[in-house]
Amino acid sequence: MSTMAPAQTLKGFRDILPEEFYARAYVKEKLMAVFEQYGFSPIETPTLEYASLLLGKYGAEADKLIYRFTDAGGREVGLRYDQTVPTARFIAEHREQLPGFFRRYQLQNVFRAEKPQKGRFREFTQCDLDIYGTTSPIADAEILSCTYDAYKAVGFATVVLRCNDRETLITTLSPFALDSVSIHSIIQSIDKLDKIHEEGVVDELEKKGMVRERATEALHAVIASKPSSALKQIMDRAIALGVDTEALVFDPSLARGLDYYTGMIFEVSVPEYAVGSLGGGGRYDKLLASLAQIDMPAVGVGLGFDRIVEAACELNLIPSHTGSSVLVTLFDDESIGDALSLAHMIRKSGVAALVYPEVAPLSKQFKYANIGHVQYVVVCGPDERAANSVTVKNMRSGMQQTIPRSELITNITSQS
Amino acid sequence: MSTMAPAQTLKGFRDILPEEFYARAYVKEKLMAVFEQYGFSPIETPTLEYASLLLGKYGAEADKLIYRFTDAGGREVGLRYDQTVPTARFIAEHREQLPGFFRRYQLQNVFRAEKPQKGRFREFTQCDLDIYGTTSPIADAEILSCTYDAYKAVGFATVVLRCNDRETLITTLSPFALDSVSIHSIIQSIDKLDKIHEEGVVDELEKKGMVRERATEALHAVIASKPSSALKQIMDRAIALGVDTEALVFDPSLARGLDYYTGMIFEVSVPEYAVGSLGGGGRYDKLLASLAQIDMPAVGVGLGFDRIVEAACELNLIPSHTGSSVLVTLFDDESIGDALSLAHMIRKSGVAALVYPEVAPLSKQFKYANIGHVQYVVVCGPDERAANSVTVKNMRSGMQQTIPRSELITNITSQS
Repeated sequence: MSTMAPAQTLKGFRDILPEEFYARAYVKEKLMAVFEQYGFSPIETPTLEYASLLLGKYGAEADKLIYRFTDAGGREVGLRYDQTVPTARFIAEHREQLPGFFRRYQLQNVFRAEKPQKGRFREFTQCDLDIYGTTSPIADAEILSCTYDAYKAVGFATVVLRCNDRETLITTLSPFALDSVSIHSIIQSIDKLDKIHEEGVVDELEKKGMVRERATEALHAVIASKPSSALKQIMDRAIALGVDTEALVFDPSLARGLDYYTGMIFEVSVPEYAVGSLGGGGRYDKLLASLAQIDMPAVGVGLGFDRIVEAACELNLIPSHTGSSVLVTLFDDESIGDALSLAHMIRKSGVAALVYPEVAPLSKQFKYANIGHVQYVVVCGPDERAANSVTVKNMRSGMQQTIPRSELITNITSQS
Repeated sequence: MSTMAPAQTLKGFRDILPEEFYARAYVKEKLMAVFEQYGFSPIETPTLEYASLLLGKYGAEADKLIYRFTDAGGREVGLRYDQTVPTARFIAEHREQLPGFFRRYQLQNVFRAEKPQKGRFREFTQCDLDIYGTTSPIADAEILSCTYDAYKAVGFATVVLRCNDRETLITTLSPFALDSVSIHSIIQSIDKLDKIHEEGVVDELEKKGMVRERATEALHAVIASKPSSALKQIMDRAIALGVDTEALVFDPSLARGLDYYTGMIFEVSVPEYAVGSLGGGGRYDKLLASLAQIDMPAVGVGLGFDRIVEAACELNLIPSHTGSSVLVTLFDDESIGDALSLAHMIRKSGVAALVYPEVAPLSKQFKYANIGHVQYVVVCGPDERAANSVTVKNMRSGMQQTIPRSELITNITSQS
């Protein structure tokens, strides 16, 4: 067995330590509970797919970021890059077994060979929610409402959904399109309004080949546009489904980078955590036809899972994981059997217990309890054994009591 | 955007459909609850590691099964092949932040380019539980006890832990070792006793170069050996921790294939599901020194997650997922807003509700409820609206009632 050379994670990858794991599990649980409440079903797709499935789906730039290789059987394969494309394949493959309106959620890791940045990794978690098989605005509203409830469930006090309609954008911008500057290209520049402001957008459009005055006009036309009646209806339905009226904001300049959107588009922001969008989505009725030759309209959202966790941690929304509630110490060799029986009894009552695995000075065992944030330490030495009692120390209050053994469970469960 | 060529999963890989997802989630939840009760902490490591970390750790044959490639940055990388080796790297990298006795569990997918078989995939889930940092037999007992409780928690009526001590095997077999046939080689043959029986083991040892009589003698010496006092103590401790006395069986011929075990070894079986071992483990005090230059004793177990799910499904231990409890139908365009408010009310009460997304004949909507195994269908047409009532059909009993709207929640929650 050879020894290990670079004992480190790959650049752009990371380990998840217990504290982070619990934070992620908490957020996951909150989100999934809401998805289930809306009748969405969970699916998973493999980490590896045929490279041909992935390539050419995300644009030429993105293709370079796909982790791909030839496997031992000579197949060209790639690591999951997003969840939309594999789901299109999934639907094509399992269509017979799926209901007519298929509502699925999916929470898996994806891989992108991007330049790593602070808080951005090459393996990260995507969380997608989509309704397939209907063009009904009610489905759009369900996506908005479920998204809203999901972010609220994590604990964000205020959640804002900025909405727009791709069709409004296209109608407004079509007089400005040029052979050299397509509507999608104009939309992509306007999408940057938040980051680079009016001046920046106009500069970029000019550079793309538009006359500066026309670029300004196009931008102003977008900013002045009104919500379409289709968008109004969706927003009304979302309100009926329980979304706060003030949480739904029409944003005429919201464009979303991806070309495939065909109707309602939206982004989620949390004013308390103003580090950009925490997720977004929209209607994409033509994508499945293009990906998997299935004529199936769709509307969905990608919730920025890692960002949500980051925001929730920063805003202290995640209850701290207390760790094991009880450490059962080992006083001496003779008391081991007794200590183990105590641990068994505590665990059976539903309380988490840890056994210190070696006979050692009690001071050392208490120190270990401190490091592990254990709430109670139980000592059972010869005196306690003789009296059929136990000594319990509450590590938070510092209070220590010797009590009858039969009262141990009530004692530790009533205090917490 | 190019269209999709082979709309199928890669050979040896599979999609997880909702029913399977729920079964897996159920087992995962049961196992994790027990791990937490024993004070184990969850960690995760990246899917990709330096290939140098993985190669030469699992043997020459296994090296061929590692999915490896050169990434765009020229690094030799590999997909997670097991959880023990990355955890050794993890411990080396984060040692400062970890407690002296580190108890971790890990439940992640691993990748092996093995010939796919029925129920065996190239991407599958491993579930590991280990205690690092102590040679105490109490740690061995905690692993046995936690493993036992975990399988019981999934619902298996009888769980058997067959135990042995590697040292006993080595002491018994050392007089039989030859320059050409090492103790480990003899152990590996004896490990097959269950599958190929005495005759087969002796044949194999003869083929390896042992005289037939000596091979028979060696096997009989193993079968006749008695539990070591170390093993007896571990088993006693496990009983103190709550393991049923009858669940602990000394099996002198249990050998476990892997060379790295140094003390207690065990395998889990469930008599109701006699398709071989459902997991196993043991003590491996030298492995971390060899993997990561850390002198750290360890004892642990690998629970065969996919097999456990398979067994639990076959034995009907997994409660069926009911799907959404309520389908809110859409009677006509005028009733949509009202139906959405009803859905909101139902969801707010904690009951999962689905909205049929289009106005359609009620028969069609009821058919959809049937396919989706929905429990209740709610209808709210003009008559109900006028009377401030709703019609509820219990899809299981077939009973249909028109009740005041204010009684809806009580009605559907009291029946289930």
